[in-house]
Amino acid sequence: MNSTVPGDKGSIRYFDISRVEDDKSGSVSDAVATEEPLEIRLAYSRPDGKRAQQSISVTMRTPGNDDELAAGFLFTEGIIRGRADLESIAPCGPPAPNGLVNVVRVELGREVTVDLDRLERHFYTSSSCGVCGKSSLDAVAVQGHYKPSNARLAIAASTLNGLPESLQAQQAVFEQTGGLHASGLFNSSGDLLAVREDVGRHNALDKLIGQSLLHHELPLSDFGIVVSGRASFELMQKAMMAGIPLLAAVGPPSSLAIELAEEFGMTLVGFLKANRFNIYAGAQRIT
Amino acid sequence: MNSTVPGDKGSIRYFDISRVEDDKSGSVSDAVATEEPLEIRLAYSRPDGKRAQQSISVTMRTPGNDDELAAGFLFTEGIIRGRADLESIAPCGPPAPNGLVNVVRVELGREVTVDLDRLERHFYTSSSCGVCGKSSLDAVAVQGHYKPSNARLAIAASTLNGLPESLQAQQAVFEQTGGLHASGLFNSSGDLLAVREDVGRHNALDKLIGQSLLHHELPLSDFGIVVSGRASFELMQKAMMAGIPLLAAVGPPSSLAIELAEEFGMTLVGFLKANRFNIYAGAQRIT
Repeated sequence: MNSTVPGDKGSIRYFDISRVEDDKSGSVSDAVATEEPLEIRLAYSRPDGKRAQQSISVTMRTPGNDDELAAGFLFTEGIIRGRADLESIAPCGPPAPNGLVNVVRVELGREVTVDLDRLERHFYTSSSCGVCGKSSLDAVAVQGHYKPSNARLAIAASTLNGLPESLQAQQAVFEQTGGLHASGLFNSSGDLLAVREDVGRHNALDKLIGQSLLHHELPLSDFGIVVSGRASFELMQKAMMAGIPLLAAVGPPSSLAIELAEEFGMTLVGFLKANRFNIYAGAQRIT
Repeated sequence: MNSTVPGDKGSIRYFDISRVEDDKSGSVSDAVATEEPLEIRLAYSRPDGKRAQQSISVTMRTPGNDDELAAGFLFTEGIIRGRADLESIAPCGPPAPNGLVNVVRVELGREVTVDLDRLERHFYTSSSCGVCGKSSLDAVAVQGHYKPSNARLAIAASTLNGLPESLQAQQAVFEQTGGLHASGLFNSSGDLLAVREDVGRHNALDKLIGQSLLHHELPLSDFGIVVSGRASFELMQKAMMAGIPLLAAVGPPSSLAIELAEEFGMTLVGFLKANRFNIYAGAQRIT
């Protein structure tokens, strides 16, 4: 697996700002994380066999690793089942006036049929109780291909404690801008194998899962994920889709993140610091 | 204006967890912020005059102030133009097995026509350069009813410095769970008039704007907003829709948040702490 940190050109921009501290004030040039829309256009075969192209998402993201973001998004949303479904991913169209290409075109294989209407209905029809946390978990169960509950990953408590510092040390854009969401993939020795950053926390994880998918490395049953902020339902759902058995968050988890971890036999750690953490589910993987 | 803090039943749940600190480990009951889906169902008149009902959004939110969330979401997304468009907002259907009602039904006046197809196309058709930051700003310009650039709010630097502490002091759920996004509405004296919390940062702001809308208080041209995390495009866009001239974030802004503030004559403050902050746009409002 490649150890890659982001920091592509385009991910940071500079602005002239006023800095006010105590009674002093001065003008400085400040590095800011770029936020720009990314449109994902999908070329696919419909259930009736006809070829179609459709814009399926516009997400605000930090430019860089757009191919990974598109691949990871399509996979964690249940639109593709793996690397084999992908024919090509390429930037699309001329650059915008600011020099960025903000459209990525994903072409699926001819034999891969996608029913976008069914995907939209999914959330509602898989529900037995109307919309509620349980129905959200049911929808995830239908989409998932892997069973993280079977994964035998074991990791020492002291190894977990070292992850927040390792993550921040590898955050190239955070370092310059003072704050950006990050997701890192680590093994049982605590080595950070890849880190991705983004203004959107879900995007950072989609990029990370997308790069693994593009390198034919799914499911990630021997690995854990560390995230810089809170552990939400959405992040747990994406980790589950990739078969990742452990997610450790520097911030707190939500109730539905814990329920998802319990439902799918995953390990969920929150408030991860250098000398402490909480285990919300799956304590057996921590030694 | 009411000074209301959240903390409705349903916003916190308790889980039995393991707490690991240094070499010790023990079981405790831990308070966790609830995350559950909320479905917004809209009853409205189509452009052809026919009455329609449609589920337009499922968002993960912390229960409490759901009526405000629905009203704020519909307004900041440009689906309604103000309080007068609303006929009723009510919880819908029986509670889910966990006791929560996760569907809210919004009925618009018969004379209020909504073209949902047009709204979906909006992002693309208002663009002159393909999808890019500029096109996102153009889309906001088309949707907005108020001009925050005309607002004469003036606020002292020392007043800004006091806001993070005031915000956290009013965060009822944060206090118990150790972390939750919040948005607070303040006046030029630095009084926090309302605070809303949510696992989703955009939801916290939608709730805050929604409560102002329901109390016929838009536009909020005499007020500022303080947010607990980063300043993103989405938060700035929502503030702009409500006519709020100043947004102060405890965290850093994104590039597109700054560009939006510049484009619409708003003031954007980032890295707001007790003794310092950065001004990214609209410094004239800070004295």
